[in-house]
Amino acid sequence: MNIITISREFGSGGREVGKRLADALGYAYYDKEIILEIAKESGLDAAYVEHVLQKGITPNYSYTFGRTFYQPVLFPENELKVLSVQQQIIKGLAEKGSCVIVGRGASIILEKYHPFNIFVYADKEAKLARCRNRAPESEHLSDQELVKQMKRIDQGRAKHQRLLSDLRWGDKESYHLCVNTSGVDIKHLIPGIRDYAKAWFGA
Amino acid sequence: MNIITISREFGSGGREVGKRLADALGYAYYDKEIILEIAKESGLDAAYVEHVLQKGITPNYSYTFGRTFYQPVLFPENELKVLSVQQQIIKGLAEKGSCVIVGRGASIILEKYHPFNIFVYADKEAKLARCRNRAPESEHLSDQELVKQMKRIDQGRAKHQRLLSDLRWGDKESYHLCVNTSGVDIKHLIPGIRDYAKAWFGA
Repeated sequence: MNIITISREFGSGGREVGKRLADALGYAYYDKEIILEIAKESGLDAAYVEHVLQKGITPNYSYTFGRTFYQPVLFPENELKVLSVQQQIIKGLAEKGSCVIVGRGASIILEKYHPFNIFVYADKEAKLARCRNRAPESEHLSDQELVKQMKRIDQGRAKHQRLLSDLRWGDKESYHLCVNTSGVDIKHLIPGIRDYAKAWFGA
Repeated sequence: MNIITISREFGSGGREVGKRLADALGYAYYDKEIILEIAKESGLDAAYVEHVLQKGITPNYSYTFGRTFYQPVLFPENELKVLSVQQQIIKGLAEKGSCVIVGRGASIILEKYHPFNIFVYADKEAKLARCRNRAPESEHLSDQELVKQMKRIDQGRAKHQRLLSDLRWGDKESYHLCVNTSGVDIKHLIPGIRDYAKAWFGA
């Protein structure tokens, strides 16, 4: 059972890498459907689940009178529920057979399955161009606003990972292969990545 | 003309990646011979040239009496000579035809040739094991001493690059592909890297 996880900077084309790689290898591909599964399983709203996974969970600070030295850190119950269901579901997907999973902390959650972990990144200009192409709804945003949005989403991903692991999101040390998609057509890169991944699993 | 540069952490197997990749592509391969060429061309000793390139060049501070506000930063003349000859030689090699160049600041020096830049890295344990295998002369060093030596050499490489460029040594953003060799047999990874590089040049 070969598990490939794709972590990616927002706008770098990580999802395209994941989908094409899964197709090239004949593996299952999981991405947004994980959100829907978590929503179904937890009884929570899909938009809320996506929001929690995107921003990273945040503690509530509990203030009590008369016990000023006791301030336990509490995470909102529904956010913990999202995390817990996320872990179950991602492990369940891995158990089904070889697959490519994009995002959702899979590289950490599936550590004991020895996944092949890829990080996809690109320079700012390439990510801006990709966002503009992909999402006409961001047309009203200036480049500066779009860059801010990309940063915010990536920071949420990093924060989410800090809760789960000491391996830092985006540090090359946390991955087996880091792929810079600036200025290249992703589909041409897939045979190389496919062969690399196969060799890695075989090695 | 396709130029591939390999930057690498000490002990990560970057030289093996470079040599095997050059063989797989039928490209020329340049590594230590660059040192010898620089020595020949500059009339300086090869060991000195290697030392300068490894540690990064260091300014001499000129102290003058009576002009306390004027302290120009001076680089030793022979170190500047090494850098200057290095640039000529590396450009000369690139002009000869497709090649793989390991280290020696080639990714920066050859920027206008649009090289495909690979960074090779590995975790501490894998690098220690590789050093032990490769260099029986380090047998007298403890693991701790060997790690210190590896760090010192990598810091020299980073320092050398800071002189030449704003792109930071070892930051994934400075490369097109970052390859983690921990726990894998490098020769199996080569076909994937070869196809990736070919597609990158074609894209």
